[in-house]
Amino acid sequence: MLTKEVYTEYKQKAIEFLNKANIVITEEEKERIEVAEYDQGNPAVIGLQLVVYVNTERCCAKELVLLPGQTCPEHRHPEINGEKGKEETFRCRYGTVYLYVEGEKNGMKGSKPKGYEDVLTAEHEIILKPGEQYTIMPNTLHWFRAGDEGAVVSEFSTKSRDEYDIYTDKTINAAGKRNI
Amino acid sequence: MLTKEVYTEYKQKAIEFLNKANIVITEEEKERIEVAEYDQGNPAVIGLQLVVYVNTERCCAKELVLLPGQTCPEHRHPEINGEKGKEETFRCRYGTVYLYVEGEKNGMKGSKPKGYEDVLTAEHEIILKPGEQYTIMPNTLHWFRAGDEGAVVSEFSTKSRDEYDIYTDKTINAAGKRNI
Repeated sequence: MLTKEVYTEYKQKAIEFLNKANIVITEEEKERIEVAEYDQGNPAVIGLQLVVYVNTERCCAKELVLLPGQTCPEHRHPEINGEKGKEETFRCRYGTVYLYVEGEKNGMKGSKPKGYEDVLTAEHEIILKPGEQYTIMPNTLHWFRAGDEGAVVSEFSTKSRDEYDIYTDKTINAAGKRNI
Repeated sequence: MLTKEVYTEYKQKAIEFLNKANIVITEEEKERIEVAEYDQGNPAVIGLQLVVYVNTERCCAKELVLLPGQTCPEHRHPEINGEKGKEETFRCRYGTVYLYVEGEKNGMKGSKPKGYEDVLTAEHEIILKPGEQYTIMPNTLHWFRAGDEGAVVSEFSTKSRDEYDIYTDKTINAAGKRNI
């Protein structure tokens, strides 16, 4: 759990990065920005801020804000009751995102945060700059990290169901999961 | 059909409005901007520019660009082979959008373009400014028009299937439909 002070600090930083990306959100949305720390207690390294625009039975859209160097930990979206897992498209709006998915290792211009190497296994790298995007198919292991200037990413997807996501780091599975 | 000159002119205007909205698109996306004129031959009045980011079996995202005063004509997204019609969320990023859906008439701060009053029947008005959004449920008649400064709208939706859309103006049904 984050203290209220740390949550407020990260929420405020997220607003600053949305401003840098020229993305307008309402006051109500600013209030409900989520700060995900994945029960690591280390949000500067493992963490993500997000604003959920819509999440219905069929469709979901969010803005994801990564502060400089912040990493969203590796996870996948499995099939649920015979229904395909979440499919998501990441579109970079600001900064640089180093996205890693299952598949052939193809060089590593980005890097893994120290101490988390073992739980970040996917090494097929996709680097996204503003205007570039990538679609992650269901049940594909993925993790992502911002470059030094942080990143803002629009996510377009099927329904988000955080409670079903499967993280490589079992300390996250055992504790709090986030619907990314 | 638009001439190549008119198409190029409207495509260029769309790029200008995306720039005003600080939305980055790639050179490849600029090339494939669609200019929809709904077979009216009157794109300054009935028309829309769009960039499709992704459109899979399950998920779709686009940017819609309306030039000042331009109107997207009234239509609905019906059920197809037992599957619910398209659900779409419009999120205004720039300018003002006057959106009209089926339902109780609630005043009309916007206006209908002259000559098209009979084929724009929905009069429940939703005015969207940057950061504001509205979700249009399947099979709901809707049309929308930009204010004097134009508008850029992100659309988050289920799959787009233009060939199934039903327009109130039967001259559109008879000719070319667009997947908005």
